[in-house]
Amino acid sequence: MKQNIKVAVDAIVFGYSHNQLMVLLIRRKYGELKGQWALPGGFVKDDEGLDTAVVRELQEEAGISVNFLEQLYTFGDQVDRDPRFRVISVAYFALVNPSRLVLKADTDADDAQWFPIQGLPALAFDHADIIRMAVARLQSKLQYQPVGFDLLPEQFLFSDLEQLYATILDQAIDRRNFRKKILSLGVVEETTQKVQQQSGRPAMLFRFNKRKYQKLQKEGISFEIKFA
Amino acid sequence: MKQNIKVAVDAIVFGYSHNQLMVLLIRRKYGELKGQWALPGGFVKDDEGLDTAVVRELQEEAGISVNFLEQLYTFGDQVDRDPRFRVISVAYFALVNPSRLVLKADTDADDAQWFPIQGLPALAFDHADIIRMAVARLQSKLQYQPVGFDLLPEQFLFSDLEQLYATILDQAIDRRNFRKKILSLGVVEETTQKVQQQSGRPAMLFRFNKRKYQKLQKEGISFEIKFA
Repeated sequence: MKQNIKVAVDAIVFGYSHNQLMVLLIRRKYGELKGQWALPGGFVKDDEGLDTAVVRELQEEAGISVNFLEQLYTFGDQVDRDPRFRVISVAYFALVNPSRLVLKADTDADDAQWFPIQGLPALAFDHADIIRMAVARLQSKLQYQPVGFDLLPEQFLFSDLEQLYATILDQAIDRRNFRKKILSLGVVEETTQKVQQQSGRPAMLFRFNKRKYQKLQKEGISFEIKFA
Repeated sequence: MKQNIKVAVDAIVFGYSHNQLMVLLIRRKYGELKGQWALPGGFVKDDEGLDTAVVRELQEEAGISVNFLEQLYTFGDQVDRDPRFRVISVAYFALVNPSRLVLKADTDADDAQWFPIQGLPALAFDHADIIRMAVARLQSKLQYQPVGFDLLPEQFLFSDLEQLYATILDQAIDRRNFRKKILSLGVVEETTQKVQQQSGRPAMLFRFNKRKYQKLQKEGISFEIKFA
């Protein structure tokens, strides 16, 4: 069977920092596209699964491991999406929490950098389209799965969670309704910790109870935060 | 760049007939797996997009065109999923309406056949897993997109629609609630046609108003039929 199509994986890794949604990009070191920014990724080895390939590429190119990894889409309708030869890319969508936002220097990470979604550089291939689809998927998932917590530190202020939803969904959120809705799900709970804010009373820190969420999910209870 | 991975597309085509969810299978004509049933599909040509490849394969292998086609998932975590050599498969999920359930004889269609989901033959490769994932996707989509109408004739009895939901979701449905919910969406409307049933009064035929649905969708109104 003769076929000249190469298979690559790419990862859209989202982080959240200073009230901004960030995406991880790497600067290409070799070849025609040298110096251009692109998503981390690369060709799949003959003896490795697609899932293994994407984890390896993230480790090699940026020295990071992720909390959440899910297949997004396979890009291959355009036969000339790579100027070198025909490549289809299986894109994965990943989330990292803030403790992993710092890139390690002992890898190719000096060529890896976080960019805010609102300020991306010019990108190689169709990677701008891939990121657009990933943002849409994140926005949609945020409304029926508790993925937002994967982007926050383990303990967070309620206002941080609210700000995260407002930022990623790009819409104003009614504070009181949001709080009521989230607390009614029963998976976000108070800790015993407080932080002193710049003004006003110290604010309580909250955390996501993953075990409780998984239990509720097994019982068929759905997690839904709609703002329509 | 040396890589020995082949790229294929496969299609999970669902139909609905006699209150059963059906899937289209083909019997393999050549090679090691000759005589085995499998999903329609095949290798992508070097100069054709993934989307074009799957439409071509459906035409060649079963002589059918579909109403709805969407990428499901790319299977390639298991390197030995094809006993011949490494193949990754981009799977597409499709729906056909009853008028296209009859397969044309002027193609490879004598080797294509509809099977009820509850009575599948032994399948080649990982195709049983692929079908399982497609059924789960269909069940999920049925609850937030009006995909059920793609499986029904243009005009249908309300009881047909209700039966379709009950069959595919595999759960009992409260008739009165279901009717109220569907009609409140405003996208299913009465026609002027009635059919005489075996017993009782003639029953009204309904149809799905796709234009109205698209208009509502643009306005951000969501279509949701939950039975949780």
